[in-house]
Amino acid sequence: MTTNHQFKLAARPVGAVKSSDFNYTSEALRDPADGEIVVKVLYVSLDPAMRGWMNDNKESYIPPVAIGEVMRAFAVGRVVASNNSQYAVGDHVTGLLGAQEYAYSSGQGLFKVDPKMAPLPLFIGALGMPGLTAYFGLIDLGQPQQGNTVVVSGAAGAVGAIVGQIAKIKGARVIGIAGGADKCRYLTEELGFDAAIDYKNEDVTAALRKHAPHGIDVFFDNVGGDILDAALANLATGARVVICGAISQYNNTTAIKGPANYLQLLVKSATMKGLMVGNYYPRAMEAAVAMGGWISSGKLKVRNDIQQGFERFPEVFAKLFSGENNGKLILQVAAE
Amino acid sequence: MTTNHQFKLAARPVGAVKSSDFNYTSEALRDPADGEIVVKVLYVSLDPAMRGWMNDNKESYIPPVAIGEVMRAFAVGRVVASNNSQYAVGDHVTGLLGAQEYAYSSGQGLFKVDPKMAPLPLFIGALGMPGLTAYFGLIDLGQPQQGNTVVVSGAAGAVGAIVGQIAKIKGARVIGIAGGADKCRYLTEELGFDAAIDYKNEDVTAALRKHAPHGIDVFFDNVGGDILDAALANLATGARVVICGAISQYNNTTAIKGPANYLQLLVKSATMKGLMVGNYYPRAMEAAVAMGGWISSGKLKVRNDIQQGFERFPEVFAKLFSGENNGKLILQVAAE
Repeated sequence: MTTNHQFKLAARPVGAVKSSDFNYTSEALRDPADGEIVVKVLYVSLDPAMRGWMNDNKESYIPPVAIGEVMRAFAVGRVVASNNSQYAVGDHVTGLLGAQEYAYSSGQGLFKVDPKMAPLPLFIGALGMPGLTAYFGLIDLGQPQQGNTVVVSGAAGAVGAIVGQIAKIKGARVIGIAGGADKCRYLTEELGFDAAIDYKNEDVTAALRKHAPHGIDVFFDNVGGDILDAALANLATGARVVICGAISQYNNTTAIKGPANYLQLLVKSATMKGLMVGNYYPRAMEAAVAMGGWISSGKLKVRNDIQQGFERFPEVFAKLFSGENNGKLILQVAAE
Repeated sequence: MTTNHQFKLAARPVGAVKSSDFNYTSEALRDPADGEIVVKVLYVSLDPAMRGWMNDNKESYIPPVAIGEVMRAFAVGRVVASNNSQYAVGDHVTGLLGAQEYAYSSGQGLFKVDPKMAPLPLFIGALGMPGLTAYFGLIDLGQPQQGNTVVVSGAAGAVGAIVGQIAKIKGARVIGIAGGADKCRYLTEELGFDAAIDYKNEDVTAALRKHAPHGIDVFFDNVGGDILDAALANLATGARVVICGAISQYNNTTAIKGPANYLQLLVKSATMKGLMVGNYYPRAMEAAVAMGGWISSGKLKVRNDIQQGFERFPEVFAKLFSGENNGKLILQVAAE
């Protein structure tokens, strides 16, 4: 009899997520019900948005994870049992399979993926939600023009690294903001960014002034807080500020720090646009074709930080917030 | 010999503007130099933006008023002497004539206005900069659709009252936020707003939830601070937030309070747009035609708060920030 281990939400985190906010549970795997499939989870995605799903915020874009519920997470896995004619044993699928070793699903909301087309982790990275986020956030909301200066925060992260590379492909001058010399070197030496700012060791406002002397045309923000304010202080006229996330604020126990420099939007006739990737799911094919092409031609490089050991899920998740991850953070749950 | 009295900036204000931040000076009026005209100022406009012009902020959209310089202000006046073939004595003009009884000008940046077309104060109100601000801010950035819910803060002010009425003309449901029962009654009973919220006596977040149960489609903000946060907490999906000003923050001696709820832009796929009216000067005729038509057909009502006594300029200016004005605040400097 096979055991299914799961991480269930035990408590609403206060500040940083602790191991005790989850229960690590075991239960016997059952057969699929009528119309159901059983998916063996191979890779679980760790995304900043998951922190928001843990809060008791009934007015967000998605209901919160309930206490006692399996932690919501994107994942990729393989069908190991099927009572659904649309899925065969051996099919690979991706979707919100959750932080567990096996998921039951009606198939709704899942997509089949082909491991011969791309390595499986890519389907929860550059070819999954983070890739769609980067692609549509930059192209549709940021609208970079040839010769524009594009700045991205969280630039070595799953979304930021893709944003910067697409901006380069589109002919922009690209500046990344990241934490630490290693990440900054990665951006300029491996990904071709024009400049990188180490927010842990540099004055970001001054560095932006130096690297973007004519101002920022597109700021793609994953971080919020002081970095957003530094960017707002350096906008070019007509700038587009894409609000993708605010990882510096998600663990706040006090109110979120709003951007004190928001009146620069007025001074610079600029626009701040909130990015909700779910709006773009109907256009996912457009991104898939573009991203697939850039990856195979070597124009878009992807770095995954694949951690091992399902039982380490809470500890691996915490790396997102300490910035310890190097590239798209993924937890391998089982061998392919 | 005629004397020209002027208010010159004496000190950069800290917090609220005090009389001692200005010098009230007298000098003999001189004849116009070659190419110059002398304008007798009839009405000076008091606008919130003037507070920003007094700060030593070299990176704003316009250079600060220098210490010792006549305070910058929109005004309307009559040409009393001319050495410029384009202007005749008796012509009326509007532009940045400044807080003074007489202005010298090359004519550059001035517009001739005809008192037979509209009462002169309108040319620094609904037919001047505040009117352009309201018209283009709402139409171009707010983009209200038939049936939308439009909320405006500072709703009884020069810009807000026009914004709300144009939104009604465009078929929106309109909610105004203003301070005090009198102003709120004015909005609903005289200007035809659907609802008004008295921020001095009501919980704005709760009142917005009640009056805009399906969320706010367009929020036109003149106020900032807690009122902006309350609106952000009540956005509809796809909302447009127009940042026109932040009068609650202009006298701050500490940092501006940024909108803590700005991540609602993400949750609601919303956009925050900074409004710089100067961008729209080339399209001023479009607004003038529309506004002129609405005023003459009675669809757009204008209330001016015309104060008397040029020497009261600092005290009258302060009314903008205490909210004591009733309608567009104007200081009459001389009889027409």
